[in-house]
Amino acid sequence: MNLHDLERQLNFLQEIDRLKSVVRLSPLIDRSRRENSAEHSWHLALYALVLAEHAAGTVDVVRVVKMLLIHDIVEIDAGDVPFHVPSTHDGQAERERLAAERIFGLLPEVQAVEFRDLWFEFEAAESDDAKFAKALDRFQPMLHNAATDGGTWVECEVTLEQIEARCRPPIQGGAPALWEAAAGMAAGHFRKQSQAD
Amino acid sequence: MNLHDLERQLNFLQEIDRLKSVVRLSPLIDRSRRENSAEHSWHLALYALVLAEHAAGTVDVVRVVKMLLIHDIVEIDAGDVPFHVPSTHDGQAERERLAAERIFGLLPEVQAVEFRDLWFEFEAAESDDAKFAKALDRFQPMLHNAATDGGTWVECEVTLEQIEARCRPPIQGGAPALWEAAAGMAAGHFRKQSQAD
Repeated sequence: MNLHDLERQLNFLQEIDRLKSVVRLSPLIDRSRRENSAEHSWHLALYALVLAEHAAGTVDVVRVVKMLLIHDIVEIDAGDVPFHVPSTHDGQAERERLAAERIFGLLPEVQAVEFRDLWFEFEAAESDDAKFAKALDRFQPMLHNAATDGGTWVECEVTLEQIEARCRPPIQGGAPALWEAAAGMAAGHFRKQSQAD
Repeated sequence: MNLHDLERQLNFLQEIDRLKSVVRLSPLIDRSRRENSAEHSWHLALYALVLAEHAAGTVDVVRVVKMLLIHDIVEIDAGDVPFHVPSTHDGQAERERLAAERIFGLLPEVQAVEFRDLWFEFEAAESDDAKFAKALDRFQPMLHNAATDGGTWVECEVTLEQIEARCRPPIQGGAPALWEAAAGMAAGHFRKQSQAD
């Protein structure tokens, strides 16, 4: 064992505790509070394990789980930018890139490179693994919104057309059956809302 | 795709959202609040990925990560019982067993069996994978306590001897180098405390 490596590993594990304090716009399903990015990442890892059979391509579930466990760690430095608030997205890619360098760089070199590469692969959303991971990252908040009478759809005044434009490509591209399910949930919400108006 | 299976999978993924509301005794490292069991599980999955080389036996990291992602889901029904409050442990094993049957039973049969078996293996702590997973589950709170001037050690009035008795066997058994690190942190805390007295 290399003692210096263990120290770096423990520093990294201590540093990422801060992801538990990065709060997303999405509500918990019981609406008691908003979700944080650490518990969101846990939830997505389970989405990957449970829903792997619905991936569009041939995926390595282990790589997908790893991607999802680390995909939001950059928010420790860069913060979370809400998906349905495009005005906040400017400059975020560069802030996240710098965060990936700093935070994964806390690890011993071999692990730093592995995590950084996985994170860039996730961001690029080109490989089958990354496409499936991205699909889950877009799908889970739709389930939360549908289960909470609209969640961020209502809060951000999003239309059904905007949901379709923003969510269909990543979800359908990575997991077609999940897009069918999500589209049904969204349509159900807007139908209910229009009946209430 | 089997539609009924997808429905069961989504029901399970919605149900486990409740783990985000199960609050543990352990503090976050910034002491802003206590940790919940969902974000704790995320953190442990990363402990497994980062610290795998320190496992005592030959471990399958993927199985360890899966175990850690699901190990606390039973707390949705059974609640969390603080490790350093033994008076709360009575009957907990049976409450957790019933919870495992109910919650993993929401999944399609093949997945329900896989998750239930993994959870029982974790609880038994006999396989190399489970021993390593258990070691991490005991090690992470020690790091949090050491980083927060004592955390639950102070809150539960635990002695250095009790820490040694309760934490050495599971941590040393699954990851000897991590026990060395943890013992050093605990000793450092108690040395500082005795100097302050």
